[in-house]
Amino acid sequence: MKITNILGSNDFLESLRGKQANFILALCNAKTYEIKGITQAGIPNKIHLTPTIDSEFVCTGQIRSLEDIAQTPKGVPSPALITRAVHVLKPFCNIELLNLGLEVLPQIDYFKIHNFNLQASEAINTNARVKAFEVFQKALDFGKNYEGYNNKDEYIILAESVPSGTTSAKASAMALDYEVQNLFSSSFKKAQNDIKNKTINEALKHINKNMDIFEKLSCVSDNMLIFYAGFILGLSSHEHKIILAGGTQMACVLLIINSIINTMQGVFNSTNIALCTTKWILEDKNSDIKKLLQMCDFKINAYASDFDFKNSSNKALKMYDEGEAKEGVGAGASLCYATINNIKQKDIIEQIESFLNL
Amino acid sequence: MKITNILGSNDFLESLRGKQANFILALCNAKTYEIKGITQAGIPNKIHLTPTIDSEFVCTGQIRSLEDIAQTPKGVPSPALITRAVHVLKPFCNIELLNLGLEVLPQIDYFKIHNFNLQASEAINTNARVKAFEVFQKALDFGKNYEGYNNKDEYIILAESVPSGTTSAKASAMALDYEVQNLFSSSFKKAQNDIKNKTINEALKHINKNMDIFEKLSCVSDNMLIFYAGFILGLSSHEHKIILAGGTQMACVLLIINSIINTMQGVFNSTNIALCTTKWILEDKNSDIKKLLQMCDFKINAYASDFDFKNSSNKALKMYDEGEAKEGVGAGASLCYATINNIKQKDIIEQIESFLNL
Repeated sequence: MKITNILGSNDFLESLRGKQANFILALCNAKTYEIKGITQAGIPNKIHLTPTIDSEFVCTGQIRSLEDIAQTPKGVPSPALITRAVHVLKPFCNIELLNLGLEVLPQIDYFKIHNFNLQASEAINTNARVKAFEVFQKALDFGKNYEGYNNKDEYIILAESVPSGTTSAKASAMALDYEVQNLFSSSFKKAQNDIKNKTINEALKHINKNMDIFEKLSCVSDNMLIFYAGFILGLSSHEHKIILAGGTQMACVLLIINSIINTMQGVFNSTNIALCTTKWILEDKNSDIKKLLQMCDFKINAYASDFDFKNSSNKALKMYDEGEAKEGVGAGASLCYATINNIKQKDIIEQIESFLNL
Repeated sequence: MKITNILGSNDFLESLRGKQANFILALCNAKTYEIKGITQAGIPNKIHLTPTIDSEFVCTGQIRSLEDIAQTPKGVPSPALITRAVHVLKPFCNIELLNLGLEVLPQIDYFKIHNFNLQASEAINTNARVKAFEVFQKALDFGKNYEGYNNKDEYIILAESVPSGTTSAKASAMALDYEVQNLFSSSFKKAQNDIKNKTINEALKHINKNMDIFEKLSCVSDNMLIFYAGFILGLSSHEHKIILAGGTQMACVLLIINSIINTMQGVFNSTNIALCTTKWILEDKNSDIKKLLQMCDFKINAYASDFDFKNSSNKALKMYDEGEAKEGVGAGASLCYATINNIKQKDIIEQIESFLNL
């Protein structure tokens, strides 16, 4: 497998060879997913369970919060399969979960689940009512006090599972006056732009120019976007290297940071941060991760794995190559992590196929 | 390789993926092994050397305390072969030895050997004369002060090499009034029940109802059983996760803990402990590891590796699959450790065969 430099040089990733990765997975529900046709990240009518079962599968290899455990996933299988396969082949040193407002808690023991007393947010077209400043403050404190897993010799991968998250991400970037009309990705091949844009336009009606950043984000954002912005700013006083694991949602986290820093006339040291994503995001014609990242006033390293399912015969997996799913649950960063740990594409595909053939 | 949940869910083991394992090997001689036909854990007339050479082989890959170094082991090869193979393929972060009364010290440099000034115990049929309370106290202190190898990010595997240890384990459980008649394993395929039961019956004649736990254990137990009970209780004030590496002997350690806790009306937090063993123990028709564990008043996670020698052509190794040897020297836990570190059965078998073809 190879890694494409989207921005910056390969030095950041190369410096992580041989080091341990602590995988942090942010989970939340934002009721935007209830808008018909907005996402295909999950099983219809059970999309609220997606972050719950994604985390169960990454941690334990089992799906516990769905009755039909043995059923082969229909439609597009979750990118959690990719992350789990990498974890089996070359384990992360640790997995921690962030409960940022889950409707159903994962049924997991022994793994650290951080709770922040946050609720699932409302749909953005009816005002998301995210407690943005409270979420940001909690995240900032969490980041400042975060000791990591080993304190040394590890980097942190920040991943997410938030169904309909690209919609709130695009709305958030627009609310903060970034020109991002055709730059955001979707879980669909043919992005449902009508529904998505209609939702975003309705959402943006709730904000006005007199609102500060957090007031705007309260209306149109989700807990993950704001939490990770705060967490990264809190962590920036440490020396931890951070990988933002994802595509355009994670780019939005950086745009939020950019807006906060500019408003506060602060300085942000971005040298310890990189974004890692998939080939499917990099090559997506309906979005532009590179342009999004270049809107930040700070420089950022960004990478994409060239992993694909060309050599798989599984039709469900092939849908990734057709653009039906592109990223999520840290899949892109997991693939980059696999690459710098000499895990082979063939072995990852075999491992994923073994999950589907249960 | 797969892991069977004997008791509990797979979460305990899954949470250890990617973490380091500190391998602790308890070694002792108990003269019960001198009773003819009681054990086949070693070379006839040299069985007292078994823990010594097991530890030499796990640590260095060499057997030093037997003259005929190059000779291929006759009969059933020690499960130390399995543990060593795993350590070669995916090294433990550290190996420490506990000298709990060895007749012959292993000829090893650079590895930490903890000495506790303990003597080999007598045969249980003539009263073992274990200094049970002294052993327990030393172990408790050792556990309380144990800092581990890295302090964090590691779990502890507690293994043993004690020839005739299943006999003293069964006698100990019976002395503490557990109904375990057909539940204990043996190194033989056809358990030498006549000799074993005769020995145990003779041993139990030395105890009476007025004795406390430690007085009873002094007569019928061995240093390893008591030491590990104390060590685990001492460690329970730490956050270390512990894997008890073995079959019915390790179950007996838990039964001893159970009796101590019940007598003291104490509370024992068993959530950080699991037992890991082999398929040969799990499938043994002459013993029942699950029932033994269920006799504890606390819950315990227990796992068995599905590793076997089906794909080996070596006749000596095949004897494991025939039930002639089942566990010991941490073999089962090593195989579970191998599984969560993505080591393949094929590679373990090849590695073990290479040891035998020297």
